[in-house]
Amino acid sequence: MAYIPTQEDLPGIRGLFAFRLETAKPLSELVDVLLRHESTLSRAERELIATYVSSQNDCRYCQTIHGATAAAHLDGDEELVRSVKSDFERAEVSPKLKALLAVAGKVQKGGKNVLPEDVARARAEGATDLEIHDTVLIAAAFCMYNRYVDGLGTWAPDGMDWYRDRGRKVADHGYIAALNSYLPQTV
Amino acid sequence: MAYIPTQEDLPGIRGLFAFRLETAKPLSELVDVLLRHESTLSRAERELIATYVSSQNDCRYCQTIHGATAAAHLDGDEELVRSVKSDFERAEVSPKLKALLAVAGKVQKGGKNVLPEDVARARAEGATDLEIHDTVLIAAAFCMYNRYVDGLGTWAPDGMDWYRDRGRKVADHGYIAALNSYLPQTV
Repeated sequence: MAYIPTQEDLPGIRGLFAFRLETAKPLSELVDVLLRHESTLSRAERELIATYVSSQNDCRYCQTIHGATAAAHLDGDEELVRSVKSDFERAEVSPKLKALLAVAGKVQKGGKNVLPEDVARARAEGATDLEIHDTVLIAAAFCMYNRYVDGLGTWAPDGMDWYRDRGRKVADHGYIAALNSYLPQTV
Repeated sequence: MAYIPTQEDLPGIRGLFAFRLETAKPLSELVDVLLRHESTLSRAERELIATYVSSQNDCRYCQTIHGATAAAHLDGDEELVRSVKSDFERAEVSPKLKALLAVAGKVQKGGKNVLPEDVARARAEGATDLEIHDTVLIAAAFCMYNRYVDGLGTWAPDGMDWYRDRGRKVADHGYIAALNSYLPQTV
């Protein structure tokens, strides 16, 4: 039971989007730009950054749905998602993504934790200005989404079935389409 | 000097908005809905919540510009802004706003810190579901904006003149107009 009345069948951020359509629109547009639009970072990489930050913030709903979406972009490789969450420096991802995950982890702790050497490491591994910008903003945005979801006490489905199904749909159609699928009137 | 190349004359989030127009749009729309649109919380009250969270996150740019905007809505009462930042429980604000600031402070530390009794206190002081929702989302959103601004190492003007001037303009015209004033092509 969330702290405010939300539709029973809409867990996590979905119930909050339905509660307040006016904020649902920019919140959905932001995540769609960051995780879906054209980028030199793959959709899987960006979902992994979102998943990692959400796990550091201990947000079950967000880390599970974005982890499932990342896995959907990775031919179902849930083991890679788990390894990024538990120890990304040893995970089977590129050195550039490791450096960006390190930046994201600093952002999660607070903006001032990002040091010139963190950015220098990312650049040395080939990260561009835009990739660094987007990594910081993805990490910052999930510090918002996670607090929004948990601060209002929303519920999260048990097990993995719901997340795998929704993650597949989000991977195929994006966040605006996902919103429209249950709130046809919003965007 | 920010960690990515930004226009020299645009401090704080402004340089980042100019760097990435596609994310500037939903980020500006979100803050405009939360802090400007019709609400049973006054604009001053909402700016005070944003200012308080930004001060807890130690973000100089955000706490100063939103503090100046709050003061502009309060006939220039910068002392009230200072008292909210330093000890809101003793500040000259309503019991309802104190309860909402307490919720915002919990969100700043992490979503799970918000407990049923925090929400119950706000309700006992007359807060509605929508006011509780918006307080949590304002606090969560400023945990994003603060991390975005500091995580990319942006600069902040010294002194108060720049902030007083911009805060007055934002108070009068809102965040979308503020964005259009230096990025006419975005929104």
